[in-house]
Amino acid sequence: MNFLQSLQNPHVKAWKKLSTKKGRDQSGLFLVEGFHLVEEALKSRAEVQEIIVREGTELPAHFYIDTIDITTVTDEIAQAIAETEHTQGVFAVCKQELQDFPSLGAQRILLIDSVQDPGNIGTMIRTADAAGMDAVILGKGSADPYNAKVLRSAQGSHFHLPIIKMDLQPVIDDVKKREIAVYGTSLEGGRSYTSIEPGAPFALIMGNEGSGVKQEWLEQTEQNLFIPLFGKSESLNVAVASGVLLYHLRGQLQ
Amino acid sequence: MNFLQSLQNPHVKAWKKLSTKKGRDQSGLFLVEGFHLVEEALKSRAEVQEIIVREGTELPAHFYIDTIDITTVTDEIAQAIAETEHTQGVFAVCKQELQDFPSLGAQRILLIDSVQDPGNIGTMIRTADAAGMDAVILGKGSADPYNAKVLRSAQGSHFHLPIIKMDLQPVIDDVKKREIAVYGTSLEGGRSYTSIEPGAPFALIMGNEGSGVKQEWLEQTEQNLFIPLFGKSESLNVAVASGVLLYHLRGQLQ
Repeated sequence: MNFLQSLQNPHVKAWKKLSTKKGRDQSGLFLVEGFHLVEEALKSRAEVQEIIVREGTELPAHFYIDTIDITTVTDEIAQAIAETEHTQGVFAVCKQELQDFPSLGAQRILLIDSVQDPGNIGTMIRTADAAGMDAVILGKGSADPYNAKVLRSAQGSHFHLPIIKMDLQPVIDDVKKREIAVYGTSLEGGRSYTSIEPGAPFALIMGNEGSGVKQEWLEQTEQNLFIPLFGKSESLNVAVASGVLLYHLRGQLQ
Repeated sequence: MNFLQSLQNPHVKAWKKLSTKKGRDQSGLFLVEGFHLVEEALKSRAEVQEIIVREGTELPAHFYIDTIDITTVTDEIAQAIAETEHTQGVFAVCKQELQDFPSLGAQRILLIDSVQDPGNIGTMIRTADAAGMDAVILGKGSADPYNAKVLRSAQGSHFHLPIIKMDLQPVIDDVKKREIAVYGTSLEGGRSYTSIEPGAPFALIMGNEGSGVKQEWLEQTEQNLFIPLFGKSESLNVAVASGVLLYHLRGQLQ
């Protein structure tokens, strides 16, 4: 057990860098904060490199940390690396998962095309987990899934299913080769989602909050779907729309 | 057309008070910001008391403002009353709707019990609009629907259907008297939402992000519903859950 007191310590500097996308990309690591997320990281197959605890903060006895480095830090350091205003004072440094998508053989996949808002991305990951998806793929132009706000909104679902940053094209190619239906989403054109019989494997593409799914993907789908708007609103929030579509498409099979 | 230059002007002080719940409750007014929301307010049956425009900002020609007071203000005043970092410099002061719920005869109703997060409330109002609900009722303990963040997340849906702050009990009583099914939501107990045949009138109660719907309401429902969790997540975001349930329950009828 180490104890760090200086904000100038290189470890502290390295942790602070994980608050930026550049720092996360260069190290291949990310930082989760709070008892719930740290517990989810420890319970999962995620590789937890170390745990950081503010002095005076107790780790629950059921946390499985026998083989993991623990560093105790001052309150000043905890505040410096925290992304929340009132930090719980517990953090885990985790390794980003690098998966080779086509090897997964995933049967139900959510593809995210250029969704910008971290809260939306996190909620979509949480929703994909709840709906039993096998993987979430984030294409170019989407917010970084290891951003602190994405991690908080996803409430630990990062540790429950593969979250992969990669170009959508090879995923679409792989899925089509395996004769799995790819559905796009579009406010105009296409068919109501309820016209699709639930239960078969599928890949669903959700798009940017303002501009929707890019034309280049819409042209490659088996069918583009819309959600009917019965009132006067012009659209649904993208995470809400994901929930409606994923729950319909998967059906009630386990 | 008035032109105001002083932050000390009583009008400016009155507008600034609309950023607090107390100020909104005392005046019965609320402030919307940005071209989209102001346009939605003008298009709707909402009572718009006045429009505020930053000097140099042009109102679109199609804004229907013939009979409405317009006040031009300095950039300094626009910044002072704005709730966003980069304001578009256009605002509308609107009257809160005071509706007597039982007179509505609503057939599809979303009841919100103690939902705290303004983003969630706004997204639920937007979703209820999209799903063609007749009214949204916010019970005690919910965030104020006229909070700026709620208004932003709802993207104008406040002006599309009645949003009513009132105790849930008389609403539940009225709905039951009219033989409309009241559904609660609960992670434990109850039945899967898919066991309910879509299409009939209904009232759906959604609850607090942490503690769910209060026991006192769950005991008064015809049936309490849950959404199956197929993965490892412990729950869905309350706005996403609202979308899944409202779209299922309403069915595909207009």
